[in-house]
Amino acid sequence: MNIAILLYERFTALDAIGPYEVLSRLPGASVAFLAAQPGPVRTDNGCLTVLAEHSLQDMPQPDVVLVPGGPGDVAEHAGPAALDWLREAHRTSTWTTSVCTGSLILAAAGLLDGRRATSHWLAMEELRRLGAQPVSERVVFDGKVVTAAGVSAGIDMALALAARIAGDTVAQAIQLGIEYDPQPPFDAGSPRKAPAEVVELVRSRSPRVQEEVAR
Amino acid sequence: MNIAILLYERFTALDAIGPYEVLSRLPGASVAFLAAQPGPVRTDNGCLTVLAEHSLQDMPQPDVVLVPGGPGDVAEHAGPAALDWLREAHRTSTWTTSVCTGSLILAAAGLLDGRRATSHWLAMEELRRLGAQPVSERVVFDGKVVTAAGVSAGIDMALALAARIAGDTVAQAIQLGIEYDPQPPFDAGSPRKAPAEVVELVRSRSPRVQEEVAR
Repeated sequence: MNIAILLYERFTALDAIGPYEVLSRLPGASVAFLAAQPGPVRTDNGCLTVLAEHSLQDMPQPDVVLVPGGPGDVAEHAGPAALDWLREAHRTSTWTTSVCTGSLILAAAGLLDGRRATSHWLAMEELRRLGAQPVSERVVFDGKVVTAAGVSAGIDMALALAARIAGDTVAQAIQLGIEYDPQPPFDAGSPRKAPAEVVELVRSRSPRVQEEVAR
Repeated sequence: MNIAILLYERFTALDAIGPYEVLSRLPGASVAFLAAQPGPVRTDNGCLTVLAEHSLQDMPQPDVVLVPGGPGDVAEHAGPAALDWLREAHRTSTWTTSVCTGSLILAAAGLLDGRRATSHWLAMEELRRLGAQPVSERVVFDGKVVTAAGVSAGIDMALALAARIAGDTVAQAIQLGIEYDPQPPFDAGSPRKAPAEVVELVRSRSPRVQEEVAR
């Protein structure tokens, strides 16, 4: 099973690495990081460089496509060649997936027209503008298109996908292998749960967070 | 605030990237990925290459040190130069931290002697053998040494650390920014919670998981 993770300048690292850590543990899985220009790709904050070891042409028909998000105009950062590749890859993929504002890239490629989908909580209106039906859920399945909410939601999505692909026992074994028994110190991970002043802080200006989906 | 994340061949990507995604959002934070040999570093499964853009000499006195884990003999993979660097860096660090079997590297450097610490659930006996007092908790603070359980626990550790460094509001804003409102599809992330056959599967042989801490 070929799993293709699309990289582009200023992607958010955890959007890609969370699902990679889960999906790479599926029996028979082969994960490849692709980019329009293979080579070093910098993440959103400039602190980390990951190698895209493959070009888009290297894998025209992956079984699973995964598109991470990032701050700013992600469809522009991904570029037209990536959008063309996504349209083609989606024709034959078993699963086409995104994390966070990666769904804005799928939408820009025309793959979410009329579909139920999710994104980072700050990007839901933009998702609607691009033709999708935004749904405030952590993981949204619509046919073979699977979208996850912001950044860390990619881990939950990948486990749900692992269960669909290889069954519950394998997915649980992967969860146990990565010891995913989350115990965040606060219950502040969603705008419905976080204190109002924290939501306001993130909306307006906060430690690099506000940049997340700023356009 | 300088945050140094140690890389070495066959490290587990999420061990490093989970905390990076949290800590890089702290106000004034600068995150650097270091290795004994700067340049491309491959992760445990060979699917991903990350650049270590700095040498150990580039940052002799980081404020925060973070050591990810990996499968196999992690202290050997990290190498003697990294252990020497850790001993020196620990003298002046504000926080010395690890994720998963990264604690075995801290222990091999002599930094966990008699300390309460945690690790991947499959590595607790090895942690004891190396002189630490193993504790089956997700995040363990012992003075300025902070250790996290397996792989995904680094996210919880980093949020707890963010709160100590910058206060609860900033930590909550970071949590909301990465939308960390975990909803795993199963409650199987700890050996105390997973079905017995899943625990047995992971202990014996499972999708690449058993390799995680095999020695």
